[in-house]
Amino acid sequence: MPAKPLEQYERLVKAARSNLRAAEVAENILSTVEAGLDFLSSANQLDLESKVEGKSYFMFALDEPRKRSRPINAALFSFDLEAADESLSALLGGSLPEGATADEVDRALYTAVMAYCASADLLKSNDKKTPGTFFEILLGHTASNWFQSSPSRQITVPTLGKEITLPTDLNFDLGPAKSRIHMPVKLSTRERVVQVWAHQRVLDGMHGVGRFRGLLMACAETNKQGDASVVEVCLPNQWIAYQMYIAQMYRVYYLDPPEKYLTLGTEYPFINVSRMSNFFFEIDNLTGPT
Amino acid sequence: MPAKPLEQYERLVKAARSNLRAAEVAENILSTVEAGLDFLSSANQLDLESKVEGKSYFMFALDEPRKRSRPINAALFSFDLEAADESLSALLGGSLPEGATADEVDRALYTAVMAYCASADLLKSNDKKTPGTFFEILLGHTASNWFQSSPSRQITVPTLGKEITLPTDLNFDLGPAKSRIHMPVKLSTRERVVQVWAHQRVLDGMHGVGRFRGLLMACAETNKQGDASVVEVCLPNQWIAYQMYIAQMYRVYYLDPPEKYLTLGTEYPFINVSRMSNFFFEIDNLTGPT
Repeated sequence: MPAKPLEQYERLVKAARSNLRAAEVAENILSTVEAGLDFLSSANQLDLESKVEGKSYFMFALDEPRKRSRPINAALFSFDLEAADESLSALLGGSLPEGATADEVDRALYTAVMAYCASADLLKSNDKKTPGTFFEILLGHTASNWFQSSPSRQITVPTLGKEITLPTDLNFDLGPAKSRIHMPVKLSTRERVVQVWAHQRVLDGMHGVGRFRGLLMACAETNKQGDASVVEVCLPNQWIAYQMYIAQMYRVYYLDPPEKYLTLGTEYPFINVSRMSNFFFEIDNLTGPT
Repeated sequence: MPAKPLEQYERLVKAARSNLRAAEVAENILSTVEAGLDFLSSANQLDLESKVEGKSYFMFALDEPRKRSRPINAALFSFDLEAADESLSALLGGSLPEGATADEVDRALYTAVMAYCASADLLKSNDKKTPGTFFEILLGHTASNWFQSSPSRQITVPTLGKEITLPTDLNFDLGPAKSRIHMPVKLSTRERVVQVWAHQRVLDGMHGVGRFRGLLMACAETNKQGDASVVEVCLPNQWIAYQMYIAQMYRVYYLDPPEKYLTLGTEYPFINVSRMSNFFFEIDNLTGPT
């Protein structure tokens, strides 16, 4: 019998804290996902009315005590444990699953994220912290193997008189021949997203424009209205103003990309938003000369 | 018998929504403060261990149901309703109370803020929204009378191809001969403060550096540790990086200013942080040439 998702999560956090890139982290991610899928397979699934064109959503549900999960994109979630395990193992280790399509890559990652997040929604009350941490560990570990570099979570500000250190999102040093990577990881963005552009601006100011390329990794912008329907909450005009006047994010990747953000790439200021699988397919182009 | 603080607050919000600068708003602020002080005078006061040098804090408390308020700075809070009323009426109307000292101005405003916030702490559960809204209405109304100008809460971004509108904090248009004012209002700042500098940067980028002067209005950075002691949570190194690399805030005013921020004015990048009463004493210098 597999350990429960919350217990597996605790083991994962402990392993990630000591070394985010360790093989033990991948093992614990896989066990957490397995435990999550196992737990969710015994929960009810209730369809939600989708107000997002072209997407279907459902939620997991428990009675007594009454619990409801966040909305799950039906096309991106799969209970096929073997497929998820195989694809996920490859991605976590730094390579594409053999012959994998973009759809399979996105589905493996989305399933992994929701396996834990939906479990936490049902097993805890109003927990916003551990789902975000799980997402950050999953992508941080994966990216560290793809970049073959351990990320840092702080950065030194070299002022003339003294040195100060700032906490940041994940950042990767890929050596002098490549751009560095500034990688904020957020399940959803909403009003806090200005932080992403502001941190990029601080990095540009400290180390020169273009020294760090900003890659925002996000999951979805879905919002449940009561327990009935799902909308996507997007603020494209604010993103445009941030990209024009604060700093330039190089890429934005979503597991469940909102249409309103995908179209930001077609008009000035050309914010390049795409599905997460693109990160893996285009990674060689992300760090070299433009 | 005075109306209860929460009912008075609802009336205030309704009046402020229709016209923030209306005389009715001042009347409702005064009634809300009176109702708050009246309610709090029947609550218990429990001393807190202050880990902030030179400051004493207590909290209001109710039993059954057990409720505890945020920490209150003992030197800045007064139950003297008549004094508060007189000072507050003058400040709300756009003038200094006759012969008022800086201490009296800060005490009147701090007492007004805490009269509502502490009441909401005891009468509601974990309400973060209405205290913030009360603080914003109080300072927005006051500033609009001091600047003799109604604030706007959005700003138009004039791009080459199309026009987009952005929500912002309060901003005041004082005519072509004066700087405009960008006034974020926050009870406390913590990690969300980067938004203040980022919005200033967007305004600088859109309308030219110096067209808007940024005045951050804040209350305190106190944090209760359990129900026993009080600390101030400050991130001066982050403020320094933001002021160096994102934008330059012109002033930061606090009702209960943390020492760690007050000293930011003495070293590069010279963030001018002071007590809130300074705003009223130096207002003529805030909008003219530097």
